[in-house]
Amino acid sequence: MNDTKERLIRTGEEMFRRQGYAGSGLKQLVAEAQAPWGSLYHFFPQGKEQLGEEVLAYAAQLYAAGWDRIFAAFPDPVEAVRRAFRAEVKTLETSGFAHGCPIASVTLDVASTVEGLRLSCAAAFQTWIEAITRGLLKGGVPELAASDLAVFILSSLEGAIVLSRAARSTRALKQTGAYVELAVAAALGRQPPA
Amino acid sequence: MNDTKERLIRTGEEMFRRQGYAGSGLKQLVAEAQAPWGSLYHFFPQGKEQLGEEVLAYAAQLYAAGWDRIFAAFPDPVEAVRRAFRAEVKTLETSGFAHGCPIASVTLDVASTVEGLRLSCAAAFQTWIEAITRGLLKGGVPELAASDLAVFILSSLEGAIVLSRAARSTRALKQTGAYVELAVAAALGRQPPA
Repeated sequence: MNDTKERLIRTGEEMFRRQGYAGSGLKQLVAEAQAPWGSLYHFFPQGKEQLGEEVLAYAAQLYAAGWDRIFAAFPDPVEAVRRAFRAEVKTLETSGFAHGCPIASVTLDVASTVEGLRLSCAAAFQTWIEAITRGLLKGGVPELAASDLAVFILSSLEGAIVLSRAARSTRALKQTGAYVELAVAAALGRQPPA
Repeated sequence: MNDTKERLIRTGEEMFRRQGYAGSGLKQLVAEAQAPWGSLYHFFPQGKEQLGEEVLAYAAQLYAAGWDRIFAAFPDPVEAVRRAFRAEVKTLETSGFAHGCPIASVTLDVASTVEGLRLSCAAAFQTWIEAITRGLLKGGVPELAASDLAVFILSSLEGAIVLSRAARSTRALKQTGAYVELAVAAALGRQPPA
């Protein structure tokens, strides 16, 4: 990919995480990406919506690969989920609570107003659910439960990020993560700790 | 409260649910509320941010009362949580997936950019966590677990709303709700169904 185009997409992803889609102005994007104004319409002739769709596709792959890496490093699903929540804790702490989830931010801005972007958000979440499902299945979660459990894990993580960003505290992520770990352990047939 | 002011706040709340804070323009707000343009700056002389804070305070109370009502009608916490998820399913279905959570939407737009609104979002979530905690305690959840469990319930619900809106399907809410019910049952010391 062209360097400038890649910089625009990466910068767009960071901006969506921090301030959503509606609040991400193109002037700010071009300035932060240190790209010439004309490059925006050169690479994204259909404008902001096209840029948005490419940013969402990029983010979908980026974080799906993250899930695959976590499950490869920690094949035990309980441990993998613990690491995923911990990774988010670290991301929020090191970014001053700015780096949320770009897909959630864009979803809440445009799900009811920009159908093309809504579809991109749905596809991104689906890609992540499939990555989590694969990891759960490899780790021994029964086939009947894996996909529902993956949706539950992702929902809980996404919501905990929202609460943590509002409070500027990682407590919600830690509290929620502990319950999600218990649910994964139960799905594996493990007894809860006494 | 003055009728026009109330209409502006109610309309603002609906708009935040549907399209977030950044994407909610004041011209659209005034038109949808059928209020004269001047009324906006009459009731909210500090502008959009002041309106936003009042909308968030209104939403905080509105949905906290909803949680209180659910737990009053269904004192068993498992049943209360089931009803809360079901109520969201119905809200999304009847609104064409437009009526999300105004606090989550505003959080993801402004948590890193408008500190006053970020604080209002944090206060709203805290009010709901306290309402849920009260219900859980009355229903027999041990004191040590109730507040963490409430955070987990709210996180899971908020995230499931995001996934459901993206997919325009209530599946994520139903799948997530089933796991949250199991977690609440476990916190009450009940055996999972065989």
